[in-house]
Amino acid sequence: MNNFKIKKSEILFKGKVFDIKLDEIEYDSSGNNGRREVVLHPGGAVVLPVTDAGKIIFVRQFRYPFQEWVLELPAGKLDPGEDPQTCATRELTEETGYTAGKITKLGHIYTTPGFCNEILHIYLAENLTPGKHAREEGEEGMQIIELTIDEVKNKINSGELVDAKSISGVMMYLNKS
Amino acid sequence: MNNFKIKKSEILFKGKVFDIKLDEIEYDSSGNNGRREVVLHPGGAVVLPVTDAGKIIFVRQFRYPFQEWVLELPAGKLDPGEDPQTCATRELTEETGYTAGKITKLGHIYTTPGFCNEILHIYLAENLTPGKHAREEGEEGMQIIELTIDEVKNKINSGELVDAKSISGVMMYLNKS
Repeated sequence: MNNFKIKKSEILFKGKVFDIKLDEIEYDSSGNNGRREVVLHPGGAVVLPVTDAGKIIFVRQFRYPFQEWVLELPAGKLDPGEDPQTCATRELTEETGYTAGKITKLGHIYTTPGFCNEILHIYLAENLTPGKHAREEGEEGMQIIELTIDEVKNKINSGELVDAKSISGVMMYLNKS
Repeated sequence: MNNFKIKKSEILFKGKVFDIKLDEIEYDSSGNNGRREVVLHPGGAVVLPVTDAGKIIFVRQFRYPFQEWVLELPAGKLDPGEDPQTCATRELTEETGYTAGKITKLGHIYTTPGFCNEILHIYLAENLTPGKHAREEGEEGMQIIELTIDEVKNKINSGELVDAKSISGVMMYLNKS
């Protein structure tokens, strides 16, 4: 499948969310060298929670890279060794307060396969019971927003919903309904 | 909207595809400090090319972070100062050989708003004329694959199409059709 050897591989940066790896490669056929920079990410889980009334629960949170509040499905990074479904269940409750009576996998996505190995596992959460969410409002705070399917489609059309994992999750949900 | 000050901001790594920025911030209310690591990406354009027969044109390419061939819509990084539509037009021809008689914007996405500022602009390309694509087969080579809408939906269901920008593009296209 590939026609190169990895001559050298080093970790340039170890962060809280991701690490950076720099590889030096050599092509078998030509002997030419190249460099490949990769963001190493532990992966995460995304939840598409649907209420009994058929509304989808989103959160709006401050996202530092954009200095902007972004509308997204609840999601979070995997803890080391954590099962994605456990992560999904945990993030749903932490971010929205809801617990799910039924959780089913919708699929998984590669968010940016060109430069990062992040995989997000997407789950449908149903039979929801409300509760108290663990995160407070503030810089890291979240607003909880419930939308009908038509409202979601309109927000994709209007550019109010631009988060790729959320749009992918909605596509998978509609595709299976 | 935010209640912190950026005390220090430095570029830790300058790469071919992305840079890494590390910010030290201080919260106004508490005086507590925090660090924010961000992948800086120039952004890019994605093309959803539809043939007169209604098929969508995908490419399959080797993606280094996964060491795997990944099925995706044609896409590429913006050159400095490049208009996204110019980038989309260029990438369509480079990767598939096709030129588009009509190109319209479907929307834009944030691929990974938690840690990266990448924005991808997604375009619908129609009235296609075939030609010779500029990229050869090989490690960086591409296979061109035309799929009906039903085949695309099946590949999302089966986990053969997992690229988030492509699934988002398909959702936007179906949403507007």
